[in-house]
Amino acid sequence: MSGAATLYRAAWVAPVTAAPIASGAVRVDAGGRIEAVGPAEVVTAAGAEVIDLGDAVILPGLVNLHGHPELTALRGALDGLAFPDWIERITELKYRVMSPEQTRVSTWLGVAEVIAAGVTCLAAPDDAGYLLEAMVEVGLRGRVYREVFGPSPDQAEQTLEELGRKIETMRRLQSERVDVGISPHAPYTVSRHLLRLLADYAVSESLPVCIHTAESEAEESFVRDGRGPFADRLRARGIKVTASGSTPIAWIAETGILQTRPLLVHCVRVAGGDLARIASSGASVAHCPISNARLGHGVAPLGDLLEAGIPVGLGSDSVASNDRVDVIEEARFADLIQRGLLRAPRALPADRLLRLATLDGARALGLDDRIGSLEPGKEADLVAVRLGEPHTTPVADPLTALFHSARGADVVLTVVAGRTLYRDGAFTGLDWPELASRLETVSGGHSGA
Amino acid sequence: MSGAATLYRAAWVAPVTAAPIASGAVRVDAGGRIEAVGPAEVVTAAGAEVIDLGDAVILPGLVNLHGHPELTALRGALDGLAFPDWIERITELKYRVMSPEQTRVSTWLGVAEVIAAGVTCLAAPDDAGYLLEAMVEVGLRGRVYREVFGPSPDQAEQTLEELGRKIETMRRLQSERVDVGISPHAPYTVSRHLLRLLADYAVSESLPVCIHTAESEAEESFVRDGRGPFADRLRARGIKVTASGSTPIAWIAETGILQTRPLLVHCVRVAGGDLARIASSGASVAHCPISNARLGHGVAPLGDLLEAGIPVGLGSDSVASNDRVDVIEEARFADLIQRGLLRAPRALPADRLLRLATLDGARALGLDDRIGSLEPGKEADLVAVRLGEPHTTPVADPLTALFHSARGADVVLTVVAGRTLYRDGAFTGLDWPELASRLETVSGGHSGA
Repeated sequence: MSGAATLYRAAWVAPVTAAPIASGAVRVDAGGRIEAVGPAEVVTAAGAEVIDLGDAVILPGLVNLHGHPELTALRGALDGLAFPDWIERITELKYRVMSPEQTRVSTWLGVAEVIAAGVTCLAAPDDAGYLLEAMVEVGLRGRVYREVFGPSPDQAEQTLEELGRKIETMRRLQSERVDVGISPHAPYTVSRHLLRLLADYAVSESLPVCIHTAESEAEESFVRDGRGPFADRLRARGIKVTASGSTPIAWIAETGILQTRPLLVHCVRVAGGDLARIASSGASVAHCPISNARLGHGVAPLGDLLEAGIPVGLGSDSVASNDRVDVIEEARFADLIQRGLLRAPRALPADRLLRLATLDGARALGLDDRIGSLEPGKEADLVAVRLGEPHTTPVADPLTALFHSARGADVVLTVVAGRTLYRDGAFTGLDWPELASRLETVSGGHSGA
Repeated sequence: MSGAATLYRAAWVAPVTAAPIASGAVRVDAGGRIEAVGPAEVVTAAGAEVIDLGDAVILPGLVNLHGHPELTALRGALDGLAFPDWIERITELKYRVMSPEQTRVSTWLGVAEVIAAGVTCLAAPDDAGYLLEAMVEVGLRGRVYREVFGPSPDQAEQTLEELGRKIETMRRLQSERVDVGISPHAPYTVSRHLLRLLADYAVSESLPVCIHTAESEAEESFVRDGRGPFADRLRARGIKVTASGSTPIAWIAETGILQTRPLLVHCVRVAGGDLARIASSGASVAHCPISNARLGHGVAPLGDLLEAGIPVGLGSDSVASNDRVDVIEEARFADLIQRGLLRAPRALPADRLLRLATLDGARALGLDDRIGSLEPGKEADLVAVRLGEPHTTPVADPLTALFHSARGADVVLTVVAGRTLYRDGAFTGLDWPELASRLETVSGGHSGA
């Protein structure tokens, strides 16, 4: 951070909490906090370094509620696999094929990709343990949930003990802008016994929780009927599986996890009472429409989730299922698939998409008092998206242009708490070409070709 | 065209009719025809200018089966309007708000956008009359269908006479690479009487035909029941509307239009017998999944259309409903919305997406003997898409990377018949900044903001 204030100017400023401002400016103080937002002729440039972004829109940094940067090496590598095979193959690649150094490089490249796409706040489970350090070092904001697996109840206590040690280490590394949580992976990879222990642990340690749930038909069959591919695989390993008769949401409520106000990732298969259960618990939802479609899970009932008052933001999920991180595209897709499916009434106007991609995501993480909109007093997490290209000319409305004509690759500036992490293709604090040169290609699924 | 052969080299070449070639090359003769395709070490560079595209994939030029370049000025301007209001507003803007010069500039910018997105062959209806000249002058390939409106049967003969004169003029302008057809707009804007006259005219003049059909619920109600917003509007203008009891496809079969083997745009609402009717007619379909979703029409039964053996390619539709031209995104979206809806089995692997976006589109236009794949003897319509960016690293499979990680903005080279129309952001034969500076913004709908 330099010693001076910074004034960002552009053709448009979209504060989220107010209408877009033509020829707008955002003034950021030397401490990385927003001082003023308004028309450029009103916001003073006195004593500030001026960054004029020209034909662009400045908006709050995008919030990505779900990603797996450590899986960046697996981009496109598992195309065409059915979900249970996909999960199994990822596990195999993570533990048996990718070296620790490969996973570290993969994690860093994932962090770079996120920043280049205009994400300033990332919430992500992490299994290998390199993500927190990368985020803190580069200056990205967010939350790292230490991922927990453990389908066998016999090993639950041991798993919890190991987790406790990892969390202690992580807490020493965390920063003012990146905190730590835990993520029991999913109902079919963590035993009920361990889920209960983790719920208690999270409450006693005040740790935020994240869980993949209500994602697939296979998960639903596993939880409700004790059947299907996940049940078969566990039984083959000698692990007992029982039918609960519950939906995945009711099941995680029963284990105590829902009472930790977790971030629920996916929520494609939420039936009747589930919506009320989620709403009354205070849990949030990471909506990942592209991953849900790409893996063949279906379409989450976004309109119902929003109507129930549940905090919902957007998640890209990993590049092993998406296969890229683009929160702008994610927002556009969230709208298009609802419109395509429901034939119109629940369409999300562009200002709603902007909120979903920024302030709503911040709210889902309990960070909406610090980030998510451009308002004086908030921390200066902001991005600029270039307009005026062949695909973004003309601009009738800046928000429609942003979500329906522009895309993540049009991001030209990413700033977290006043610090520039990315500008015009160049990163601050990481050497992308060097990292990319060290990545070995992992081949995984059967390709589409 | 230069006097020498050209050799294009890249990390990958995707010929469509063969598996992708690593470190591939395409040799093009001085006449713009493909001489050889293969591994770079096999294809001779002797006597050729070598263009090394590095970390990129070379593929046949994308075929966009449906666009409206003249509407480029309306990008994002009608966001949020219901379909019948959207149609009405477009008509108003086209005829009463946009000046002829504005429409001409809009058309040229539309042509530029298409080229920058890697489209080498465009099939498009055109109402104002500037498109053919623009395409011929710039060197784009394709087909321009002169658009026809005429809901009042009383004026049918007069409309046909005027059309005849326009077609005569257009035929004098057409080139070896751009030909001319006619496009009765839709069943609700062209009377049955005029449709019959147009069908006869098309057959006698050997003119290809294109029609928007089976797109919306409003169109279906109009044709079948003589009801709904389109019927109301015509009745208000004193035009008689009758119920046919038919589906839109059966209706255009009854008028003789289906017997001209037309390009059917949309086909969202195709019921039982319609598939057989289309298949046996020899008609083709322009599948426009994003426009269909964005306007709230629903999802065309792509799997059924393909299974019926109907030639299907992709169309972006206009930027007033999409709001951009990106055939790569269109292909990805076609797959994702089918997977999201149908929960998996009809997923389209990446090689199928490549075919849809290239050779299948060419087949739908009857051009698959000339373009659509990289094979010796075919005309050299090709594009290069850059890989190796943060969002396209690593590449496990070049086709998965192309359709699921890259996007239209990653196109770095567009070549038609051996002639470069676009390279690294610069156009040959058109001055984009100058055109853009002359575009006035048109404000149209109620915006999302």
